[in-house]
Amino acid sequence: MVKHSNIKVATADLESLYRIFTVAEAPDSTLGQIEREISENLAGFLNERIVARAVSLADIERDFSCSGMPEKPTFVSEHTQFLLDKLVANSVHTAAPSFIGHMTSALPYFMLPLSKIMIALNQNLVKIETSKAFTPLERQVLGMMHNLVFEQNDDFYQTYMHSESDSLGAFCSGGTLANITALWVARNNLLKADDQFKGVNRAGLFPALTHYGYNGLAVLVSERGHYSLAKAADVLGIGRDNLIAIHVNGEHKVLVDEMRQAANELEKQNIKVMAIVGIAGTTETGNVDPLNELADLAQSLNCHFHVDAAWGGATLFSKKHKALLKGIERADSVTIDAHKQMYVPMGSGLVLFKRPELASEIEQHAEYVLRKGSKDLGSHTLEGSRPGMAMLVYSALKVLGRQGYELLINRSLKQAQYFADLINQQSDFELVSKPELCILTYRYVPKAIQTLLASADETLQAVINEKLDDLTRFIQKCQREAGKSFVSRTRLSSQVYSNQTITVFRVVLANPLTTEKILQDVLAEQAKLAQLSQFALPELAQLLKERQVNHYQ
Amino acid sequence: MVKHSNIKVATADLESLYRIFTVAEAPDSTLGQIEREISENLAGFLNERIVARAVSLADIERDFSCSGMPEKPTFVSEHTQFLLDKLVANSVHTAAPSFIGHMTSALPYFMLPLSKIMIALNQNLVKIETSKAFTPLERQVLGMMHNLVFEQNDDFYQTYMHSESDSLGAFCSGGTLANITALWVARNNLLKADDQFKGVNRAGLFPALTHYGYNGLAVLVSERGHYSLAKAADVLGIGRDNLIAIHVNGEHKVLVDEMRQAANELEKQNIKVMAIVGIAGTTETGNVDPLNELADLAQSLNCHFHVDAAWGGATLFSKKHKALLKGIERADSVTIDAHKQMYVPMGSGLVLFKRPELASEIEQHAEYVLRKGSKDLGSHTLEGSRPGMAMLVYSALKVLGRQGYELLINRSLKQAQYFADLINQQSDFELVSKPELCILTYRYVPKAIQTLLASADETLQAVINEKLDDLTRFIQKCQREAGKSFVSRTRLSSQVYSNQTITVFRVVLANPLTTEKILQDVLAEQAKLAQLSQFALPELAQLLKERQVNHYQ
Repeated sequence: MVKHSNIKVATADLESLYRIFTVAEAPDSTLGQIEREISENLAGFLNERIVARAVSLADIERDFSCSGMPEKPTFVSEHTQFLLDKLVANSVHTAAPSFIGHMTSALPYFMLPLSKIMIALNQNLVKIETSKAFTPLERQVLGMMHNLVFEQNDDFYQTYMHSESDSLGAFCSGGTLANITALWVARNNLLKADDQFKGVNRAGLFPALTHYGYNGLAVLVSERGHYSLAKAADVLGIGRDNLIAIHVNGEHKVLVDEMRQAANELEKQNIKVMAIVGIAGTTETGNVDPLNELADLAQSLNCHFHVDAAWGGATLFSKKHKALLKGIERADSVTIDAHKQMYVPMGSGLVLFKRPELASEIEQHAEYVLRKGSKDLGSHTLEGSRPGMAMLVYSALKVLGRQGYELLINRSLKQAQYFADLINQQSDFELVSKPELCILTYRYVPKAIQTLLASADETLQAVINEKLDDLTRFIQKCQREAGKSFVSRTRLSSQVYSNQTITVFRVVLANPLTTEKILQDVLAEQAKLAQLSQFALPELAQLLKERQVNHYQ
Repeated sequence: MVKHSNIKVATADLESLYRIFTVAEAPDSTLGQIEREISENLAGFLNERIVARAVSLADIERDFSCSGMPEKPTFVSEHTQFLLDKLVANSVHTAAPSFIGHMTSALPYFMLPLSKIMIALNQNLVKIETSKAFTPLERQVLGMMHNLVFEQNDDFYQTYMHSESDSLGAFCSGGTLANITALWVARNNLLKADDQFKGVNRAGLFPALTHYGYNGLAVLVSERGHYSLAKAADVLGIGRDNLIAIHVNGEHKVLVDEMRQAANELEKQNIKVMAIVGIAGTTETGNVDPLNELADLAQSLNCHFHVDAAWGGATLFSKKHKALLKGIERADSVTIDAHKQMYVPMGSGLVLFKRPELASEIEQHAEYVLRKGSKDLGSHTLEGSRPGMAMLVYSALKVLGRQGYELLINRSLKQAQYFADLINQQSDFELVSKPELCILTYRYVPKAIQTLLASADETLQAVINEKLDDLTRFIQKCQREAGKSFVSRTRLSSQVYSNQTITVFRVVLANPLTTEKILQDVLAEQAKLAQLSQFALPELAQLLKERQVNHYQ
């Protein structure tokens, strides 16, 4: 086997081009060394190569500012070195145990070599002719996940798992496409063909609504619903404003009564509720809607019931905690992201259909692929060509097993409870949303300000909260830029403060390597950063001074 | 560094779980060995591990038939062995030089280690907080590709490439999502907000059409248009039947006059032509529509002009052949798949917008990400969370350079011409569509039958073509199952036979390792398989005998 330590295409030389497709970089080349580094010690690679430093985006953009197409080929090693210096060094260490701000966590080590097999095979899951065994495998994974959620009997799965005309669900690149697919199915099923009408899929939305006599369609979801639902409403022609946001209670769960009232109001306007969406793990606070009550409501409205469990779905692996999602088995469709709490690399979401025949509402065929009667997966997906990510989900399920996932889930929930307790013990922090799964929100509020807030009227609370928002933003940005740890921030309406919208820190505790010590350090760093604030804190102090004086006057 | 040759999660043991996230499989483990095998000799791995054999789908399904969630963890090595035996062995060797049936080709070797870096970093491109340098890099790649297609000046790119409120395009998992995104933009731009109306994105399609006074929307494209366009029409609420298929000429290029007439007819019915789509590289025959004429038509209709260059876009890298796509620079949006003729792994498509402000029609924001004013890529994409595939496109552009790509493209087109000549030289084959890019179609027709067909009337032609269709299907299936080589098949209306629809072999000649010898062998194998046909060929012989007898009577 000939090896080159550094390959480059010599222009006007086809031989060198063939080399690019046939000869590996030598082990001692830059790329060869990096590859070994990752194989042997992934954490080491990430810790050393990602340089945690406060580089401005503008500085990074300068390295990626040339719009000209590179004319001449570049040596692989030279290019790799550039990537290491400019791209890898300035990436986000999503796997760091102190990166607790978003839903991207560490990957199990076996995922990397398995991903390499997947990419080497370069299968295209749209059709059997370019995937063969990957198609049955993906169907099996859909079956397993369907089983996890809906627990049908064995006959059911033997009938439907490998059926050509039905589908238990669809793999897609992420939860957004999964949600769009679910609502696409719901829309087409509602406005399907009948004796007089060829169906919304063929005729379009305008004649469909005319035929069925509706003035419009609506989707109801809690105000904590993911923004992908608004995107779905836009894409599907329903309109973003017809995704109706329903208020939540103090635990960030949707108010079912309010949703029922909204549905009744819409009905009076002859606007059909196409679907209601329950959330199993809100993006911002990790709460679960009362799914059973929503299922009842959907039944009484005779509409589609979708559950967005992109985040929380994996909780079903835990015998201890799965009851939190009770009612999910009554959904018509469910979204779950494997690249979130299932620890699979980015790019693997899925939607499941309780009744496999629902998928026929979005069925499509073509002459050269997806022929009628074929088992091509592409006949029931929003995407066309797509990679074999199902192999990675399958591998995670097999290697970790349900019991392995239960360990992970239980640990995450316990860790979140620990952090909530820790925040409650600090006099200068305020826990804003308690963790139901493993997400929680909080903010830094000096003790004295807390006291002031408690006795303040609405107007004063608003003044104080605005200052606190500045402070929260300041701390979050500084902490992110310092690079030791990362929490995210969001804005939430708070029932404690007359539904004022406040800015809060948001943490997601899914990385199994996050220790209690790290959580203590995160709070300590935030408290320290608060002291450095040149604007909000002095203003708050001033405010406090004025009010305290007033108080004693 | 401790290494385990075989890791498994011991249930109820958190320590073993941590190991899964911190310790690599040892080099001598099954997975370790496979990984080295791929690194050292990708082609060897694929050739040896993929067992080309006629296994029925039903047999494969048996290995993937259990719907039960695996309860207990499995050793990584045990699982890897299962994957090798059951999944890898029964995969499709898409990189084989004799796999010339679909658009998935071999990958340059450097793609594999680079993919590993990408997966190790596990960035989420939806927002800067989970991607940092990947965001500017993706914007740069969009800029480079925009430049390739639209060739704007440097000021333009300096203004827009890293602009927060505009977007030169969007990465997505493939051409289907790219086409949907383009038509989504077109629809929202057509039915945008004005003084009296809040826009289709907010209000939905029904009030939008009412406000603008249209009875419906339509999209016009050649009958060779990709099925993703029908999917887009369905999803966007336009309706599949309102994707109007226009006939093609003998060179499989859309008849612009017929499209103009169709547009006029629609206008009379008060149906607005929302977009016309030109194809730069039809999926089935690889032809390019007359893009300049289509651009003129779009201008006169005042509608969006989209070019689906998913396949053919890469031709722009070739100075020698780029003129084939003349007029593409006048498109409003263009789809290009990097996982096709740009030799990037599955999962990387992109759509480009000529005017970057078009992207604002699909803009979205949320509180915890994609905040207004942020440069988060997710504010202008159909997908939400998605992987950093842009790094691989960037790497391909840098390592190969335009000149490297030109070599590849020129070689593919030359190879296709060689194969067409070869088919023309064989007396028992009929070339059905000549290659304009590197795709062509043909079929096996014994010389004597060719003669008969030439003199036959329409009815007899139909009888013969039906038999030939059986034969083509038979040969294609046998060849695929034998596993030595793969061509695909499709059905095309043929002007030679009074627009009868015939079944043809379809080949895509993009793999730089496909030799002339392989092409000769493909034809030889097909001729041999034809002799084995137990049904179509004897029937054709019988038919021939009858007619020849008749001829002499």
